[in-house]
Formats: sequence, C-alpha cells, structure tokens
Amino acid sequence: MRRAIELAARGLGRTSPNPVVGCVVLDSAGRTAGEGWHQRAGGPHAEIHALQAAGERARGGTALVTLEPCNHTGRTGPCAQALIDAGVARVVYAVADPNPTATGGALTLARAGIDVEGGLLADEAAAGNEAWLTSVLRGRPFVLWKYAATLDGRIAAADGTSRWISSPESRADVHRLRAAADAVIVGSGTARADDPQLGVRSAGLAVLGADEVSQPLRVVVDSGATAVKAGARVLDGTAPTLIAVAEDADAAHLEGLAPLVRLPRAPQGRGLSIPALLQALFARDVRSVLLEGGPTLAGAFLAAGAVDKVVGYLAPVLLGAGPAAVGDAGITTIAQALRLDVTDTARLGPDLRITATPIRHARPEEN
Amino acid sequence: MRRAIELAARGLGRTSPNPVVGCVVLDSAGRTAGEGWHQRAGGPHAEIHALQAAGERARGGTALVTLEPCNHTGRTGPCAQALIDAGVARVVYAVADPNPTATGGALTLARAGIDVEGGLLADEAAAGNEAWLTSVLRGRPFVLWKYAATLDGRIAAADGTSRWISSPESRADVHRLRAAADAVIVGSGTARADDPQLGVRSAGLAVLGADEVSQPLRVVVDSGATAVKAGARVLDGTAPTLIAVAEDADAAHLEGLAPLVRLPRAPQGRGLSIPALLQALFARDVRSVLLEGGPTLAGAFLAAGAVDKVVGYLAPVLLGAGPAAVGDAGITTIAQALRLDVTDTARLGPDLRITATPIRHARPEEN
Repeated sequence: MRRAIELAARGLGRTSPNPVVGCVVLDSAGRTAGEGWHQRAGGPHAEIHALQAAGERARGGTALVTLEPCNHTGRTGPCAQALIDAGVARVVYAVADPNPTATGGALTLARAGIDVEGGLLADEAAAGNEAWLTSVLRGRPFVLWKYAATLDGRIAAADGTSRWISSPESRADVHRLRAAADAVIVGSGTARADDPQLGVRSAGLAVLGADEVSQPLRVVVDSGATAVKAGARVLDGTAPTLIAVAEDADAAHLEGLAPLVRLPRAPQGRGLSIPALLQALFARDVRSVLLEGGPTLAGAFLAAGAVDKVVGYLAPVLLGAGPAAVGDAGITTIAQALRLDVTDTARLGPDLRITATPIRHARPEEN
Repeated sequence: MRRAIELAARGLGRTSPNPVVGCVVLDSAGRTAGEGWHQRAGGPHAEIHALQAAGERARGGTALVTLEPCNHTGRTGPCAQALIDAGVARVVYAVADPNPTATGGALTLARAGIDVEGGLLADEAAAGNEAWLTSVLRGRPFVLWKYAATLDGRIAAADGTSRWISSPESRADVHRLRAAADAVIVGSGTARADDPQLGVRSAGLAVLGADEVSQPLRVVVDSGATAVKAGARVLDGTAPTLIAVAEDADAAHLEGLAPLVRLPRAPQGRGLSIPALLQALFARDVRSVLLEGGPTLAGAFLAAGAVDKVVGYLAPVLLGAGPAAVGDAGITTIAQALRLDVTDTARLGPDLRITATPIRHARPEEN
C-alpha cells in the first residue's frame, strides 16, 4: 500500500477534478504483477493501468488501491467492475470514496464475492489526497496559503524591496507547491509590485522530468481591473491565466488579453467575495489552489475561513519596518486570534519552513 | 570535562562579573576525587572547591577545568598557585582566559612543572560561558534579545491585548532565561502597557531548587521618566530595580522609589544611548542582559549592533493587525536587512523557539 501511495503522488497537479490514486496488483502468490496510477483527468484510472500491466496474473490475486474503487461510469468505466472482470480475489483500499457519485465500489465488489478490506494506511493515503478530499468535503477548492517573511513578519523592506528575503532552497520549494496545485492566486498588490510570472520552473524539481511539470492556472484577483496591463509577465504563454474582476469594474482594456471572470464584491465592500471566487474556480475543475498573497488577499481568505493549510518560509532576517505577511483579517483582539496546529517544521537552507493547519472551530467559515 | 561543564552551568546568573567555571579533580589513579564550581562572585573559585573536596587525594592527580585557571589575586587567591600547592600532576582546561588581568595561569602551572593542556571540549565550554566571554570581548554586557510573536510577527492584537500569544511552555522557558541573566531590560512602552514584574518564578525551573533561583536586576529604560509610577509591579521587593532616564528628564517623582541612572539621549534624539546604557550596566558588574522589549527598544538595540543572540518564541497564531516584534531599526531597504544564523530550533508546546545569532559583518557596531 505504501508503494501505491507513492504511485498516487505522481499524479498530483494533473488529475483534477479527480483524486490522485495509486494501485498495485499482486498475483495469487503475492508477487507484484502490475502497478498503475491515475495520470490525468479523462485518462484511465489507477486500477485499469495496474490490471493492464498485470494481465492474466491478476486472476486470483490482490489489488491494493489508495482509494475505494469507483462504482460509476464517467469518462471511463467503473473500476469495481474491471476488478471483478479481471478475477481478482481480494481488494484492499486505504480511504473510502466520499464522493456521492462514485461511492459504493466496496459494496459492489463484496456482492461479487470478492474479499474487500478498507482502511489500510488510511491516514497516509488521505494525506496524499488531502486537497481532493478537502474539496469534496467543502464543495470548494482546497486552499494552501504560502508566504515568505522575516522573523519579524515582514514580506518586504520599508521601500518595498523584497528580493530576496527567502533562500534559493525556499524558492525552489515554492515551485514544488505550484506544480502540485491546479491554480495559483495572487492579488492586485502583488501583481502591481512584483509583476510575477507564476509559472513552475522545473529547475529544482528533481523528482520530475522537465516535460512532466504541470503548469497551474494563473489567477490574478484584480477587483478594480487596474493592476494587470498588456505585457504583464502573468499573461505570457507559459500557462493559462484568469483575471477575476468585480462585476462593476471597467475591464475593457483586458478583453482579449486573458479570460475574465466577473465576481460580486465582498459584503464589506473590500475586494471580491472569496467564496464566489472559489466557486468560480471549482466550476472550472480547480480542486487545489496555492494562494501566494499578498497580505490583503491573505487577510481576506483568512477572514473568510477559506485557508486549509499554511506553509510559511521564515527567513532569519530582521527588518523592523515594511509590510506584514497578513493584512486585515477582521481580528481586533487576542480572543479572536486565528490559531493553528503546526504539523511540520523543516530547515530549507538558512530558512525555516513551517506547515500548519488552522484550528477550525476558532473561526467559522463565511457563507 | 563534560561533567565540569555541567557543574559550571550551575553558577549561571550569579557569578558576574566572573565567568562560570566547573572543575573536577581526579586522583592519581584517575578516579573522581573532588568536584566544584564557582557559585557566586566573591566566593571561592571552582578549583578551590574541588581541591578542598579532594583533599590529599589531589596529590599526583589531574584537575579538569572549564576555563584556564586564574593567575591573579582578586577577592580570592590565584587558582594556579592553589593547584601547585595541592600537588596535582596535570591540569587540563577547555578555554583560555581572555581576561587580561587573570590570564597567564597556564604558563605559571607549566613553569611549576605541571603537565598543562588546553582546548579540551573548548567549543562546548565556550558555549556555556558565552555571555561572559562575549562581555570580555566587547567590553559591554552580552545581550540576549527575547521576543514572542505570532507567525505574522505581531506581539499583540490591534487593541493591544496579548495574553496569551505564547504557550505556558514558552513562558516558563523565559523564566529560565531570566534566571541565567544578570539583568532584564524593558522599555517604557512595555512598562506602561503590561506593568510587568520581571521576576523569576521558580515554577517550571525544575533543575533548580526554589531557594536557588537568582533574581536578575530589573531595568526599565524610561527616557522621559513618564512610564514608571509608584505602585508599579517592577518596584516590588522581588529583586533590585534600576530606572534609566535621560539626563534632562524630570524624574523627581521617582526619587526614593528605585535607584536612577541618568544617561545621554541617543544621537538621533530617540530614546537613550544604548552603548551608554550598556556601559552603565557593565560598571554595575552586569555581564549578561536579557532584553525583553518592546519593539522600540529592540529596534534601538538592533540598530546599535548591540544584540548578540536572539531567542524568538513563535506562536502558531495569525492576527493580521497589531504591533510588530521589532520597530524601527534604521533599515529602509532589503540590502540593509539584518541577517542571522539560526543555531537552534525547538518545539515548546504548540510554539516554535528559534535561537539565532546576528551575522556580525552585516551591521557594524555603533560607537
């Protein structure tokens, strides 16, 4: 199963709206007969790849799958039926499928007389499918907020300069996060100040061949349609781009530069409605989002309860002045503080990387 | 020698202006015959304690000492002579004594025919004496700046509330730092906002008996003499207190409340001269200082190049508003950023503790 989880991870960033899934088929003697993973949406599921590799050796064998085999016919046929047809004797899966249209595979297999067991390495497999599982649960994309700051919480010096606060190792790590995301989001302040390109550079992504890098959709939240101009690096041909503007914004100059999506403004009148933005992305099959800032947009996402995970790159630097990593999140007193659980810490060159998860009960999600 | 370094650490916070020193005396067969450490300034040195414990068994034996034995007569006689008189055959020390008035012990021992070796576990022993060695090198107290902040660098919420950002484990750790320091310093902003008591609570200091806790001198930098009032908790009887005010401040109301020291203002006219403050403390035998903030004072110390070590308690909390951990340190652009080396990271309950050392060449010390 651990091998199946490894295989599943190879699909990260290209299977949405589907989950990542890995499968190992053992023959009746317990030897590996075939491996597979879900490589891209619309392509064969992991079980199909593994069964094809195993051929006749699957008969009487065992299939180990990271997710409960699907039971429905979408762009491909149901995997439960394929496993039955291949004659496997036993199916072991890690995580049950919470998706209402696909669930029921375990029951179908059991009814066909196959020995079915769920829950093996479930936590590990769920962590590998964190984004997709969260998106099913919340009905919106999983949001990972990434920031890079000094020890005193600054993302730039007083004059706005910020190259470089974080180390080359940290910056390479961000490309890894981008490659695993369906979309990367920045706000108008970042678009204006940094003119970021937001593509994935394969340098540093040693685990992937350069041709395997998947480029996420680049999303600029430009409520007033004032930040993105013709010639902006985010409009180059690296990857598709989407500009989100307010319903009432004058965006005539953006016509033809990139697809636009018009969204309602936030109830408080500052920026766009974050839930509406996430719904618009969900409708475009985006299941995981890397939120790259800046502080205003990060504050809006946090205030909306729409951050599922935080990755902070803390550089051992002090500035004493300059913009902070998070702007107004609607918190005025310590009792309202957004508290997190630190799930991982790591050294990346001179920097510290902190991974944390917001503690849910602290701030209800905005509706 | 490792045992001698452990013994030395027992003196932290009470030996200034002397170093901490530990000593183990072995008999001629290599068995431990006596142990000692320098317990307080004015009391016997580590070697004397250990030789007394060893008695006649020291003859022909070996003395292991964390610092080169002293050669001068201060409040006590020279240890080099005491080792010669006791008839030890060999002396092994870790770190050479850089203090010009005490140095030369190794030479005296060698001239008396004793086998002398220096440098054993020198790095470890030097780390244990970090504050004292730094104070000798710089001619001012060693300064450890401690702060507690959120992941976005805030030390309080927008309304000034800050109890509690950091965890009980982190707050207990601060008491450990206080117990090891000769003086604790806060600025007028902190005195005004928090009315801190600044004493060491022994709860949580499991390694020390309650009666062994040493209370540092409490120092409030109150340039305008407007922050400390009669009844302030920092004026209670727990420990001595010193109020530092500007030469031209009207401090009549503080007469009789606590000792005052009048200091020149900083050249830029904001607050007191940090070098003058440190000189005044050095003259009072303070060799190690715990700087507890707030942001204005921390910025002034950093701008003066007067921070030797940083301990940051980072709580997994986001606020999006509120004061930052460091105020103006004279840095306006990224090229001037104060960069540090992270020497340690640790988890304290939910918090992260980061220990770092400023990279010296980045900012010259103010004269």
